[in-house]
Order: sequence, then structure tokens, then C-alpha cells
Amino acid sequence: MGYSGEKLQEEKVFKDPVHRYIHVRDRVIWDLIGTKEFQRLRRIKQLGTTYLTFHGAEHSRLSHSLGVYEIVRRIVDDVFEGRPEWKPEERLLSLCAALLHDLGHGPFSHSFEKVFDLDHEQFTQQIIVGDTEVNKILLKVGRDFPKKVAEVIAKTYKGKLVVSLISSQIDADRMDYLQRDAYFTGVSYGHFDMERLLRVMRPREEHAVIKQSGMHAVEDYIMSRYQMYWQVYFHPVTRSAEVILTKILHRAKHLYESGYEFAQEPHHFYSLFKGEVTLADYLKMDEAVMLYYFEAWEEENDAILKDLCTRFVNRKLFKYVEFHPSNSQMNRLMELRTLFKKAGIDPDYYLVVDSSSDLPYDFYRPGEEEERLPIHLLKNNGEIRELSRESEIVDAISGKRRTDHKLYYPSDLLRDESTKKNIKKQIRKLLELSD
Amino acid sequence: MGYSGEKLQEEKVFKDPVHRYIHVRDRVIWDLIGTKEFQRLRRIKQLGTTYLTFHGAEHSRLSHSLGVYEIVRRIVDDVFEGRPEWKPEERLLSLCAALLHDLGHGPFSHSFEKVFDLDHEQFTQQIIVGDTEVNKILLKVGRDFPKKVAEVIAKTYKGKLVVSLISSQIDADRMDYLQRDAYFTGVSYGHFDMERLLRVMRPREEHAVIKQSGMHAVEDYIMSRYQMYWQVYFHPVTRSAEVILTKILHRAKHLYESGYEFAQEPHHFYSLFKGEVTLADYLKMDEAVMLYYFEAWEEENDAILKDLCTRFVNRKLFKYVEFHPSNSQMNRLMELRTLFKKAGIDPDYYLVVDSSSDLPYDFYRPGEEEERLPIHLLKNNGEIRELSRESEIVDAISGKRRTDHKLYYPSDLLRDESTKKNIKKQIRKLLELSD
Amino acid sequence: MGYSGEKLQEEKVFKDPVHRYIHVRDRVIWDLIGTKEFQRLRRIKQLGTTYLTFHGAEHSRLSHSLGVYEIVRRIVDDVFEGRPEWKPEERLLSLCAALLHDLGHGPFSHSFEKVFDLDHEQFTQQIIVGDTEVNKILLKVGRDFPKKVAEVIAKTYKGKLVVSLISSQIDADRMDYLQRDAYFTGVSYGHFDMERLLRVMRPREEHAVIKQSGMHAVEDYIMSRYQMYWQVYFHPVTRSAEVILTKILHRAKHLYESGYEFAQEPHHFYSLFKGEVTLADYLKMDEAVMLYYFEAWEEENDAILKDLCTRFVNRKLFKYVEFHPSNSQMNRLMELRTLFKKAGIDPDYYLVVDSSSDLPYDFYRPGEEEERLPIHLLKNNGEIRELSRESEIVDAISGKRRTDHKLYYPSDLLRDESTKKNIKKQIRKLLELSD
Amino acid sequence: MGYSGEKLQEEKVFKDPVHRYIHVRDRVIWDLIGTKEFQRLRRIKQLGTTYLTFHGAEHSRLSHSLGVYEIVRRIVDDVFEGRPEWKPEERLLSLCAALLHDLGHGPFSHSFEKVFDLDHEQFTQQIIVGDTEVNKILLKVGRDFPKKVAEVIAKTYKGKLVVSLISSQIDADRMDYLQRDAYFTGVSYGHFDMERLLRVMRPREEHAVIKQSGMHAVEDYIMSRYQMYWQVYFHPVTRSAEVILTKILHRAKHLYESGYEFAQEPHHFYSLFKGEVTLADYLKMDEAVMLYYFEAWEEENDAILKDLCTRFVNRKLFKYVEFHPSNSQMNRLMELRTLFKKAGIDPDYYLVVDSSSDLPYDFYRPGEEEERLPIHLLKNNGEIRELSRESEIVDAISGKRRTDHKLYYPSDLLRDESTKKNIKKQIRKLLELSD
Repeated sequence: MGYSGEKLQEEKVFKDPVHRYIHVRDRVIWDLIGTKEFQRLRRIKQLGTTYLTFHGAEHSRLSHSLGVYEIVRRIVDDVFEGRPEWKPEERLLSLCAALLHDLGHGPFSHSFEKVFDLDHEQFTQQIIVGDTEVNKILLKVGRDFPKKVAEVIAKTYKGKLVVSLISSQIDADRMDYLQRDAYFTGVSYGHFDMERLLRVMRPREEHAVIKQSGMHAVEDYIMSRYQMYWQVYFHPVTRSAEVILTKILHRAKHLYESGYEFAQEPHHFYSLFKGEVTLADYLKMDEAVMLYYFEAWEEENDAILKDLCTRFVNRKLFKYVEFHPSNSQMNRLMELRTLFKKAGIDPDYYLVVDSSSDLPYDFYRPGEEEERLPIHLLKNNGEIRELSRESEIVDAISGKRRTDHKLYYPSDLLRDESTKKNIKKQIRKLLELSD
Repeated sequence: MGYSGEKLQEEKVFKDPVHRYIHVRDRVIWDLIGTKEFQRLRRIKQLGTTYLTFHGAEHSRLSHSLGVYEIVRRIVDDVFEGRPEWKPEERLLSLCAALLHDLGHGPFSHSFEKVFDLDHEQFTQQIIVGDTEVNKILLKVGRDFPKKVAEVIAKTYKGKLVVSLISSQIDADRMDYLQRDAYFTGVSYGHFDMERLLRVMRPREEHAVIKQSGMHAVEDYIMSRYQMYWQVYFHPVTRSAEVILTKILHRAKHLYESGYEFAQEPHHFYSLFKGEVTLADYLKMDEAVMLYYFEAWEEENDAILKDLCTRFVNRKLFKYVEFHPSNSQMNRLMELRTLFKKAGIDPDYYLVVDSSSDLPYDFYRPGEEEERLPIHLLKNNGEIRELSRESEIVDAISGKRRTDHKLYYPSDLLRDESTKKNIKKQIRKLLELSD
Repeated sequence: MGYSGEKLQEEKVFKDPVHRYIHVRDRVIWDLIGTKEFQRLRRIKQLGTTYLTFHGAEHSRLSHSLGVYEIVRRIVDDVFEGRPEWKPEERLLSLCAALLHDLGHGPFSHSFEKVFDLDHEQFTQQIIVGDTEVNKILLKVGRDFPKKVAEVIAKTYKGKLVVSLISSQIDADRMDYLQRDAYFTGVSYGHFDMERLLRVMRPREEHAVIKQSGMHAVEDYIMSRYQMYWQVYFHPVTRSAEVILTKILHRAKHLYESGYEFAQEPHHFYSLFKGEVTLADYLKMDEAVMLYYFEAWEEENDAILKDLCTRFVNRKLFKYVEFHPSNSQMNRLMELRTLFKKAGIDPDYYLVVDSSSDLPYDFYRPGEEEERLPIHLLKNNGEIRELSRESEIVDAISGKRRTDHKLYYPSDLLRDESTKKNIKKQIRKLLELSD
Repeated sequence: MGYSGEKLQEEKVFKDPVHRYIHVRDRVIWDLIGTKEFQRLRRIKQLGTTYLTFHGAEHSRLSHSLGVYEIVRRIVDDVFEGRPEWKPEERLLSLCAALLHDLGHGPFSHSFEKVFDLDHEQFTQQIIVGDTEVNKILLKVGRDFPKKVAEVIAKTYKGKLVVSLISSQIDADRMDYLQRDAYFTGVSYGHFDMERLLRVMRPREEHAVIKQSGMHAVEDYIMSRYQMYWQVYFHPVTRSAEVILTKILHRAKHLYESGYEFAQEPHHFYSLFKGEVTLADYLKMDEAVMLYYFEAWEEENDAILKDLCTRFVNRKLFKYVEFHPSNSQMNRLMELRTLFKKAGIDPDYYLVVDSSSDLPYDFYRPGEEEERLPIHLLKNNGEIRELSRESEIVDAISGKRRTDHKLYYPSDLLRDESTKKNIKKQIRKLLELSD
């Protein structure tokens, strides 16, 4: 079978706190794990700034990627193998796509992509088809293999079943991150019976379906997901760190554009500032590099950059109040902006509305911005039904978007009464702070 | 009571995977956690290079420090309080010492200290008594409070009971790290019944003792410790990374001393190279900074520095064979060094013997290099006996040092047959590699 | 303080898999645990026939009772103590009521009470106020103390806060059994963050409320409850065993009433059959006694009693099909009854519809059959709001009763083709069994 | 392949708290689980009287038997399959022997066997080869299959590898019970890395060996075993219950032999008293039946039987003091016996020395009473070495028997000062009780 079928002499394992062990038998997978592009994921945290809220959340995207691979391996080898709807020739493709699906993530992805208008999925594609160690290994499997792997990750691959394993509302990606993020943060949410879910998954042409008898396990999974979003992913303290991070990057870009002379020159950022980032530039960016700059910029002359970096590095975060984008609150926001300016605090950097929004589950709405692949149940009589038609619980929350807005500000600056005492008092009043 | 007795309006908690929650009521503790010196510990991993072996081991010294604080808090507030042998006025001192005991750790401490001849304990002292945010807060408790905290950590404080809580063979430090390191690596070792140990601890003038009824829990703790050393801390893959790291720092220092012109100038290292490191310099050093340099040095002109950095960053580690420092093996090592030189591979950087050695438990041997405080059992009749006199299991392993030597080398270079094919073949043979 | 305030010389603990340890300091609690009425709960399983579905579910009502006590102890001592709304003089009352709330349960309660028209709550009352070891101990606390304890359990006590601790939609009873039943069955459901729930409970005059910040933990708890009902408590195999058990008791009663001569005389059942059961009779009944009879009755002459007992003892249970009480299905059921009779299988014992029904959460509907105390959230501004007004998830499922009907029958008898082959074939067809 | 190779249409699973799921594919295994002899194991607790010490320890021998089966299934199907040293034709034999190895256990085995001079292993043999449901199923596999299964369990089967899977110092039996007993009691001991142990097991002709790389996991397993013996199995409170149980059975037998007229006639015991127990009699004995009698005997006229039964049923156990069988203590025991008689308390029933003794690990000592199969390590070079030659820890404890003696007595009777006050005072003094 050549390289694509080559097995290691002895199975290798990685100890993993979530799945006990990650098992590797395929030479291709072993070699991919050893590439520098994959190893780079060690320097990118799975949960970005969340470690500033939950001190255990230091785990890397590398460990998540291994976990997704392991789940797909178990689905394919322990559950799908031998079933007529499963094409064994898509096994290695599924494993590689699972392992590599997050390869293009940048440091603190969320803010990073927003500020520099980047898309990590595009970089994942570039790494897979570009001139990289990963590409060289995939090419050894077959000429068009890198392209196929890239297509699976981009959801354009024709074999929709394979796509659904890593991109649907119940895929290996989510199953790993919910459990992993719960484990490392230490929260009580995020648990569901994955063993059972895997046991009742069945391959169909268009997607993996879940046997009816596993419906309660699916409900539990969806509730876990819901809880993790609001308890962990949208935690207001994490978002405060994210707000500051975004403002740091904005400020640095702004300074660069206005010809400011950096004490610590932002070599790694120039191509980002110019919007001309190459794959090589991009791959040099990771969280160690980013933190290096932020630490250095604690000594810049620009007061705003210096202050924001100091806040981020030393976790002196913004405080927040609830905010609802009603007319009256929007007016109050405008008023606050004016007062901030009077107080000498730039509201563009120090008064920030941040919104989080989540849809715990949705049935299929064709043509919408982001089409979400729904979950299908396989009934005993062979019929296939979309989940929310069978589960009252899921129906009750299906399609219900929940949004949360918060207004972030530096309470320490506002409490410093050495200057502009009265204006700050007014601000604090408007923010409903006690005096 | 002033600042030292000030309580937060409402108890604050940090979610912790090991202890469920870290509870903070004291204003002093809350303020210390918020200092930049304490927050810096987020950028230093608890287990150094171990994450290259166990991908979950990304946890920071900050989380360990919070854990040690929490254990001491529970001992003091839930077990010791109200007992005549316990002085309540030493409560805050114990908590602060627990929280701050690791404050002076540098990046990848082990290698870092060895190469630059530093001692993290000395820096812990400096941070506590020097001009720092931490010092300012401690001073608010009392003029001599920083000094006292420093003494507890240095084991010179007169109240030996307090010292024993964080520095003995069964202290809060070890109890936290064994459990925490087990949790994050995911290994099955490192578990013991801490609840029970805490319940049976009793204060005595010189140290905390363990009630006889807890002896089996102590035995279990000692075995856990033993297993963690050999399964995790001395794992040969971790040591391989450590070997490379050490050689990078040696090479950089050597290049600096020989006037080499760095493409990426090692600003942060100059004072280290010169042996004139100040506290301010030291505090700027963390693992983000170190990784930044290693990544930059992947593009240096010096082939050795470039190669070693590439290895470390991308986890292309050295392989190893067992090594026993007998005459014959020492001769073989000399022979190998000669062959390495002939093959154009500098043995000073590429052929390294590394030794690990551990004493699972020891009774007190006064005057020895590192005096180890033994564990004492409190019998029902009030008598106090050193553990190994009561436990057959502990007696059996007491004072038995176990040492392990390995010889590390770059197997990839030796397999590259483009040059010096025959010499490399000879080397591989000597290393007992199959051909 | 006398007996009511008497503390044990040293705290006693029971090792508990759910709460780690059960802590006892109060002499009264210690003495109550030692009574024979409390020890009797060891011989009554917490989950009745569930052990025939989940082999781990052998845990007793004694362990659950200790768990409820421990949770109330933690609420009262760790959370409520010192808060103005909490009356410390109700502490011991709360602890005793928690410990004793299930004291009157009979063997396999559910079926037992139904067949003999008994109410375990009434027996709990009788044990507490009657001539028992428990009563003697409670009397030592105070003349009217037994009556008060009984009132708390009966929900008629005037201090509604105390009542709410063990009888509301979020009480110590449920918090213990969800976790305990999950632990012993081994299912993945039943987990929620009890630590957090306890931390955010606050005493109010009428009930314990939950701080708004704990809302997600409450949602998670309600979903756990929902899952446990459908995954464990209403498991169709458990209900099959329950159906058989009910029929055994009916048959034995029927035989007694029709003058049948038992080979193993049912001494322990006579007063039950006559409806004249005394407290002393009742206390002699437990699951060991019941099983003794069922095993003996495997050798009775009456074919039905003998068969049903053999089924129960050796787990040869009934099979089931879905059943919806529509006109057509009711007609089919009538037809099946006729056919069963023709086949010589008594449908009164061998063709049974069983229904399960659950309301995952409900707001308060005064005057309804069983008034359910709703859960209240305490907002930051001090306002108190009923849970379903704040939580979309809970609102979505609030008041929605779900019911499930199944039709049970002995598939082995129907497959035995030695007699009435054709009729049995017809029956199997009607039951939609494959031929 | 006929019955022996028949697979179920769909894999069946049992939810298990220790192994997550027990998987059954083989028709034979499924049928064996459904027999009444196997179901009887539900009525026999795995840990006998231990539930009186650890209230969670209510788990049955049935759940343990399923666990041992599951471990052997995993060894055989996941690890041994395909290796040249493994004979696939011994697969089903291994699974059946694992499942059935404890089939002959009686109620509260330990005391039961001792008093009536029975051996559960002999009954296991009888059930397998006698006229039972189990035997019928095994016969369908092959004429001599029951005999082979019986031989494996009796350790006389010629294929020693199969024997070693369920009877050696590291077998599936121990691996299951250590973990299961730890889980249900809730203690922190009993954990070891079974996943790893299974992964490194290798079949050899005479036994399963463990790859050298798993040595630390074996050490951990041996320490777990050691801890479980002293923390759980030999717990003095459990032994107190065992002492009382033994004395009940002795007393009942004595009364029977001396012609006493029982109010509750011991029908189930007659053949035991006479030493003429048949298999049918034996199978009717379980813990429900035994408890039924003990409860009934609480109302016997014989004061000793009545008292002992009341103690056992209501957990009014004996207290204990340490006892060392030295001359002086033996003299004191004689003196105590005399005083007991004077006080009207029969020392034959109320003053009991109980000893526990354990050998944590032993190498092979041929010809000894109970030959213990040692553990063998497989070194990288293929050499096989007995464990204690490789592991210092194991060597240190190897062959070291530890024994513990306690003297049990009814402290309540001795504190009752209504009669023989002075003699009781003397007794209490001799027992070193405080006055």
C-alpha cells in the first residue's frame, strides 16, 4: 500500500488527560505530528485570554488537535469500520483533516483576526497546500491528497460524511473542546457521555447520524455546549482581556500608520500593519512572540500603548457594567464618551461595548450566513429525523439566539482623584458606581 | 485590626481543577495576587520542558502557588485553629509565605539556573524585600513583615512549625504539585488522600505531625511522590529537551564571549552572560521572552545555535541510550567523542550524559548537604515517632537513592549519510543502534 | 447546653463516595445513626428494582440519608451561619429532619405502597413520634422536638426556610440523590456544580434562594434531574421489574383472600393483606425479608405466583413495546387481552400498561394536587424572581409534562410454541413482533 | 462455527461505573449471564460485612464477575489477539472462566465457609459440571467444555497462560476488585493505571508477562493492593461484624445440636448443621435468606443468639483493643475469660481474638501451602525476570508478611453497671479502658 498504508512498528501513544491516551499507528499521522507547523500549535492557547479568568486554561491548540484526531480515529476504526455506508478509503483523509483542522490559527485568534482582517481558515488552507513540512508529507500519500484534506476542512469536499465528522453541530471538534476546556478550566460543565455518542453514531451518505436511543446523550451534549458558552467562553473577565488586547493591536497599528517611532520596533507586525502578510510571516507569529512585544511595549513612550500593555501583561483588566443598546443607554454612552474626553481618557480605547451572542442549536436554514449542519436521529424503523423534531428540550431552545452586551472601562483610572475629580465623579455616577 | 486583619466584603474564589476552588477572604492575599511579580508566574510553566513529553503539562507556577496557598489556608483555618499549639498570629505569615514561595523562579528554571549559576530562592528573597509591588503590600502589614515572610521561605524563621508547612517532606508545596502535575499530565499516579492527611495533621512546636491513624495515607503519598519522580519528572524525553535547552544557553553565552555578532541581539541576556543580573533584569525574563529568542535564533548564522534552537522550538529532540558510568562505558564515551569530532559533530553540544537521582524519603541526617525534615507520626499515647520506624514500607525505601544515567545524541544527524558515512556507521554501532 | 448542644469528643467521619466524608460532631446525630430504625434503611435500596438494570445501583437509603444530612450540615454551618435571616436555634432541627426524612420507606417502596395502599411519609411520622429508639433520642433534646422534626418532614412546620432545605425543587434531598444515583449506576448524567450551588444559597424567611450568579448552575442541575428521570428512574427495564413485583404482591394478596394454602406461609404479610399493619409489623419488613419470600414462593403450587417470583428472582423480565392510549391502541389492547385468555395466559398478570410521567420544573401553581415549591433567584439589586422568568432554558421546559406508556408482556411464554401456537402467533403479530 | 462462535445481532452493553461499559458480543456469554446461578450472585455482596464500615460497599459479586470478564475480554481481544503466543481457540474458555470464577460463593463467604467447613471453590466446580442452567449452556459449546472451564478456575488446566489471566499475583480478578472496591467504598486507594498494564501485557506459554516499560505501573498496582488490604479489607470494624456473624452461626449450630427448639426454625440451615449440604441446598442460601433468619432470631428465647443477631442486624458491634499473642497477653486473656464467666458473659461468644495477615507480594516458593504465581517482566532484550529482582520497592516488601491481632468484646455490656459492677470494673481495667 506504500506510505499511505504504512503502520508504525509499534503503536505510539500520547498520554492525554481527556481521552487517557491518543493512539497512533499510521506513519502519516506520526510524521504530521512531528512537523514544525503542527508543533507551532503548542505556542497558541486553545482558549486565548481565558487563562486570565480560569488559571488552568493554559492548554494549547496542539492538545486539542490531537484530541479531535483521536475522536475521529475511534469513530472510524471502532464504529464505522465494516459498515456498508462507510468508505474505508476515506479513513486516512478523515484522520488527517481532523488532526490539521486548526493549523492556521494565529495567536489569540479572535482579536488578532478581527484587527488585521485575517481568516485562520484561509491560512489552514495555505499551510496544507503551500510549501511546508505538512504539505510534503501529505504529498507522499498522493498528488491530490493535500487538496482533498484542505477541501474537507473547507467543507467543500464532495464526501459530505467526512466533512460532517469535523464540521457539524455534533462533530469531533466540539466533542473534544467541550470536554478539554471543561477539564482544564475545572468547571463542572462540559461533561456528556461521549462513549455513548460514539457507540450510537452511524454513517450515512450525507452525514453521521445518531441512533434514537442516544437522544438523551445528545440533549446532554447540547446543554453542555450551552453552559460552556455562557460560563466559560463568554465569561466577562475573559472578554475584558480580549477588549484590551484588541485595543493594543489597534493602537500599535495606529501608531505605525502615524509614523510613531517605536522603542521596540514591531518587526513581526509590519506586514500585518500593511495588510501584506505572507505565509512565512504568519507562521512566525505565536503567543510567545506577541507577549514579548507586549512586555517590551510596557516601556514605550506612547502612554496609551504603554498602559494597555501593562494592563494585559499584569492582568489589570477593565471592569464592566451591563449594557443594553436601547436609545436611552446609547445616549448615556455618548454622554460618557464626552465626559471621558473631558477627563483626558480616550474613549476610543477606554470605553468599549462588547457583545457576545450564541445560538445553542439550530435546524438547517438554507442560505443563511453560516449554514449550520443540524443533528439527525436515526429511528428504529430506519427513518431519519432532525433532532429538534424529536426532542422537546432541544426544540424549546432551537434557533433562540441569546445576546449579552457589556460596557468596559478602567475603574482604577476613574477612581484616581488626583485630576479631574468632579468629572470622574460624574462618570462614576453614570456608570452607576457607588460613591 | 488594620490592613493585616482586613477581610474582603465578599469571599472571592478562583476555579481550580485540583482543589475545586481557591478561597480568598484576606485583603492582603487578594492584593498580593494582583501584583505584577505574582502575575509574572503565569509566564513560567510549573514543569518547564515537560510539556514536550506530556502535552497537557502547560500549567503555570501561578496556579501551583495558588494551590499551595489554598492547602495552607485549609490546614490553618480548618485544622489548626483553636488548638493550643497553634499561634493564630502566625496565620497571615503562613498564608503569604505559601503564596509567594516560588516567586523567584526563572524561565525553565532548572537549566537556566545551572547555566547562569543563579538561585531562584535568592531572587524570591530579593522580590520580597526589594522595591516591588509585593514588598509594598507586605510592608502595609508591618515593618518587619516582608522580612519574616522571606525568612519562612528561606527556612530560617524561628517558628519552625510555620516553616514545616511549606518545607518538609510532607508539606503543602509537595501536596499541591504532586496532585496538580498528575492532573495536567493526565497520569494515574500522584493521587493520595489529601483530605485525610489534612484531617490528621496536628501542630507541634517544631513541625506539623500526622496522627498515627493517617500512616497509610502518608505511605500512599510517599509512593505517589516516588512514582511521579520516575514517571514524570525524570522522563527521558523531558530530559532530552532540557539537555538541548542547556546547550542553547551555553552556546549563546559562548558566542557572546567570543564576540560573535548576533542577528537577533540578545538584549535580555547580556547581564546574565556577564553575571551581573539585577532584580529588574531578572523579572523581565520569562518563558515568552526566552521562546522569542529561540525562535529568532533559528535564523542565526552560527550553525550550532541555529540547529539547537530549531530542535527545541520544533521538538526535534535527541535520542538516548542507557549509560552506566563504569570504566568501560566511560572509555566508550571517550571513543564516541573522538568519532563525533571526526564526523564534524561537536560532542560538547551533541553528546551529553544526563543523570537523575532521587531519594524517595529520608529520615533526618543532620549536617548533610540538604537537610530533609522527616515526617513524624503522633501515636495514640502522645508519643512522636519518625515515620520510617513505624512503617515497614517506608523503612524499606528510606534513604535509598536511585540514580539513572542516559546518553543523549542526535540520531537524525547520525543517520544522514550524505557525509562521513563510515564514521557515522561506527558511531551508530557503538551506540548499539541497529543498522 | 445539655444534650442538644453536646459535641462528640472528636469529630467522627463516614467515608462517602459522593461527598468524600460525612462529618458528625453532634452527639444527637451520632446517636440517631446508631438506632435500629435508622440502621434498617441499610436493608432498603435507594433505587428499588433499578439494580436489575444498572448492576451498580445497590446503594441503600441509609447512605442517601447520610448524604442529605451532610448537605444540610454544609448549608447551615458553612453558608447560612452568621447571616441575619438564619435562626441558629433551627440548626439541629434541620439536621435531624434531613437525616430522618426517609425513615418510613418500605421495601421496594413504589410497588409496595401502591399495592397495599400505604404511604411511607405517614410511617416516617409514626417512627418519629411513636415508641422507637429514634423517638427516645429526639425526646432528650426537648419534649416537643420529635413533633417539630416530624412537622418539618411533613412540610407543616411554620419555619418554611427549614422545610425548603429538604422539600423544594432544589433541596438537599434531590441534590444528594441525583449525584448518588449517578455515581452508583455509573451514568454520565446527574452531575452539576453542587459546590457552587451551596456557595450561592442564601436564607430568606420563606425559603433558601439562589444568587443570580448561580443561575447557570441551577439550569445545569435541572437538566441533570431531567436526564436522570428518563435515563435512570424511568428506564423501561426497571419498570418491567416493577411491574412483575407489583403483580407478585397482587397475586399473593389475591391468593390469601381466596383462601389459598401457602407452602411458605406469608407471616410477614398478613397484616398488610388485611390492611391492619402496625408500626412494629411495618418495621419488620425490608428487602431481605421480601426476597426471602419471593425465593420461597418459587416453589409454590400456584403457577402464577411461582412464575412471577421466578422471573423476579432470576431476572427473567417482561419485554415491552411502545403504547399510546389512543382509541385504536386501546382497542388493540382489548383484543390482546381476549387472545391472552384464549392462549391460557392471564392478562391481568401478564399484559400490563405502565406509564411514567415527569415535570422537569414547575413554577408555583397554588391549589394543585402536589404544590411544588419553585426556585427563586436573588438578583444583585436584592429583588427575588422565580427562576423560569430569568432563565430561557428553564422557561422553555417549565410546566411541560412528559409522559411515556409502555405495554409489558412475557415474550418467552409467547414464543413457546408447544401449545396454542396459532393464537400466540396472532398475539405476536399484534404486538408487532417479527415472526 | 455453531454456538461457540455465535455473535449477538448487536453488541449488548451493561453500564458499569468502573469500566464504563461491559461489552458482550458472544451469545454464550449473554446466555450465561441470564442463568439463575449467575443472577444469584446479585444476592451476595462482594465485600461481605464491609458495608457496615463503608456504607457504599453494597456492590454484589455479580458486578465484580462482569468486571473480571470485561478485563479478560480486553486483554484477549485488544492485546493478545494476533500474537503468535496466543491461541485464539482459548478465547471463549478464558471469557467463560473469568465470568464464572466466583460462582460458588456463599453468603458472607468468609465466616460461612469457616463455620461450616465449606469451600466455595468446590461449589463453583459443582455448579459448572453439575445439573444447572450454567452447565447446560456450556455443554452446548462442547462436550468437555464445562470440564475445561472448571479446570481453568481450579488452576489445573494445562494451558497455564489462560489460568494466569484469572489466578496470579496480577490477574483480572485482582485488577477488578481493587478498583471496584475502591470505587464503592469511596477510598482514595485502589487506583492504578490499568490501561497501561493491559497495553504492556504479553502472552507467553506459561503466563502473561509485563513489558519492562510497565514496571512502575506494576509497582503502583502492588502498593494499591497493599493499601486496600489494610485500609479496607482488614478494617477492624468490618472484622468486628465478621466476629459476631461467626458467633451467630456457631451458636445456631450449637443450639441445633443440643436440641434447642427454635421459634423460627432454621430450615435452610439443617443440611449445613449436619454437614450434608447438597448443591440445591447451597444455591438456596444467599444473604437475603441469611438476614431473614437473623432478623427472625432477634426474637428467639436463647439470650446469646438473640443478642448476637440484634447486634449484627442493628450494627451494635463489638469494640476492640490491640492484642499481641505474647505470654503476658495470653495470660491476661485467660484472666479475662475467667472474669467474663464470673460476670455472666460467655467468653466463648463475647471475647474473641481475631487476626489478619497479608503478604503484599511474593516470589515463587515451590511447595508452599498456597503457591503464588509471581509477576514476570519482559525486558527489551527479550529476557524474562521475576519482578522483585527488578524493582527495589517490590524487593523491599517481598515476602514480608504482616499480621495484626485484635481482641473484640462488647463494651456496652461491660458498661452496664446494673449487675456485677465490680467484676466489670476489673475487666474494663484489664482491657485498659478508662474509667
